[in-house]
Amino acid sequence: MTFPENTVNRAPGTVHLVGAGPGDPGLLTVRALHLLQRADVVVYDRLISREIMDLVPAGTRTIFAGKRSGHHHMEQEEISALLVDLARRGFEVVRLKGGDPFLFARGGEEASELVINNIPFTVVPGITAASAVGATLGLPLTHRDFVSGVRFVTGHCRQNGELRLDWAALADAETTLVVYMGLANIGEICRELIAAGMPADIPACAVSNGTLTDQRQCKAPLAALPKLVEDLGLTAPVLIVIGRVTEMINTLNWNKLPIEDGAKTPIEAVSCDGLATG
Amino acid sequence: MTFPENTVNRAPGTVHLVGAGPGDPGLLTVRALHLLQRADVVVYDRLISREIMDLVPAGTRTIFAGKRSGHHHMEQEEISALLVDLARRGFEVVRLKGGDPFLFARGGEEASELVINNIPFTVVPGITAASAVGATLGLPLTHRDFVSGVRFVTGHCRQNGELRLDWAALADAETTLVVYMGLANIGEICRELIAAGMPADIPACAVSNGTLTDQRQCKAPLAALPKLVEDLGLTAPVLIVIGRVTEMINTLNWNKLPIEDGAKTPIEAVSCDGLATG
Repeated sequence: MTFPENTVNRAPGTVHLVGAGPGDPGLLTVRALHLLQRADVVVYDRLISREIMDLVPAGTRTIFAGKRSGHHHMEQEEISALLVDLARRGFEVVRLKGGDPFLFARGGEEASELVINNIPFTVVPGITAASAVGATLGLPLTHRDFVSGVRFVTGHCRQNGELRLDWAALADAETTLVVYMGLANIGEICRELIAAGMPADIPACAVSNGTLTDQRQCKAPLAALPKLVEDLGLTAPVLIVIGRVTEMINTLNWNKLPIEDGAKTPIEAVSCDGLATG
Repeated sequence: MTFPENTVNRAPGTVHLVGAGPGDPGLLTVRALHLLQRADVVVYDRLISREIMDLVPAGTRTIFAGKRSGHHHMEQEEISALLVDLARRGFEVVRLKGGDPFLFARGGEEASELVINNIPFTVVPGITAASAVGATLGLPLTHRDFVSGVRFVTGHCRQNGELRLDWAALADAETTLVVYMGLANIGEICRELIAAGMPADIPACAVSNGTLTDQRQCKAPLAALPKLVEDLGLTAPVLIVIGRVTEMINTLNWNKLPIEDGAKTPIEAVSCDGLATG
């Protein structure tokens, strides 16, 4: 990459760690849009939608720092070093991250690197996928008739290792469970939850490409969800929502989204051993 | 309230259940701002900031439907009935809710009432307080070096009854715990968590009026938090964040917010029995 050399003696620029939300440009915050329109450089992830990148003015430099599950284009350390370097050259940098920077987006690691290097920064929250998908489907994550709260975990393994989740704690029908990046391990996740005591027939849904034009979703009893997701060929990113609130999309689906419903699959017909693990 | 009678024969209007986010108008979504600017009527909660209401055009009718903890101005049923009535008169209605409509905001109940009455509606997610407060303070809720996920519960009792939370499940140092509306029961919450096994010295913070100009915050070991919050006289709404990630605000507080730090209070000096319960 080449940048104008006449910036070298300027004071460091600021790095803005900005949540882009789930992809729908209407779900950007007003501040995020404002920052995108005045940045010198936008460093963006793979999950940032084309519609959002179209809002970046034509003269602004954009740098793809995409990470693909298990197939990184830039290592996290390289991204952090890039942000430091750009700021030192005096640029105003927007580091645009899918969702919210502090919910499974490694914003904390980038912020720490900026602090170590004395780079001024700001953090702008974004609509996280759980909120966005809930709104889109008519799925009230914390409806008080059903649950006492909600929890978010990631179904993505660190460095392709094992999923290290406390299944016994997660197998709680009184709490809505949202699994981010859950596609690759959906079979293991559902199997382990059921083994730990989560009812096999608790309703669950999986949503691919939430809020984008190619959003797809399906709903099934937990035990039947992996097979349904596999049969439909849903692609990442997939958000999984498990809990009794999921039932509400039957009536509150205001968008009239087509929901593949696996409820008619008898639970007994689904072998937990046979659940997809890819 | 009087409304033009010539609207009676129009087709029903649409009710938009819109999350306003935490109060900072820069954290409205682009869609929320757009809807606010074209609505006929805005029905708003107590937690909607003056700065956001200032964005509503002068000619738009606004209706306060505020609820104060334990002191309701309008009952939930009245609010739902009002939304149905306004839509039947043909108005485009924005129902503006603090935070996100489906995270502790009873959006599900209002949506259900709209469905029963055949009123078209949409749902627009908002930045939830946990995301906003995390961003403001430099507090990465799910930093993977510390936790495997995050959970959100409400510390507000239903109809002034008892808090019915599964303390044993919540007392998990591997999961960041965010308590919404936690002020009234902060003593009980901290005491029960510690009794259930949460380390008494796990770092925690409390944030009042997050993202507003009068935001205040403090940080202390869990056992010492209620006393500190009481001594400082923090006022509702208060968001409590409990977990090891809280320690990161020591270095990532990019806003340079003044953080009252109770870390020097020896834990032994704090009697759990004496914790504030008001």
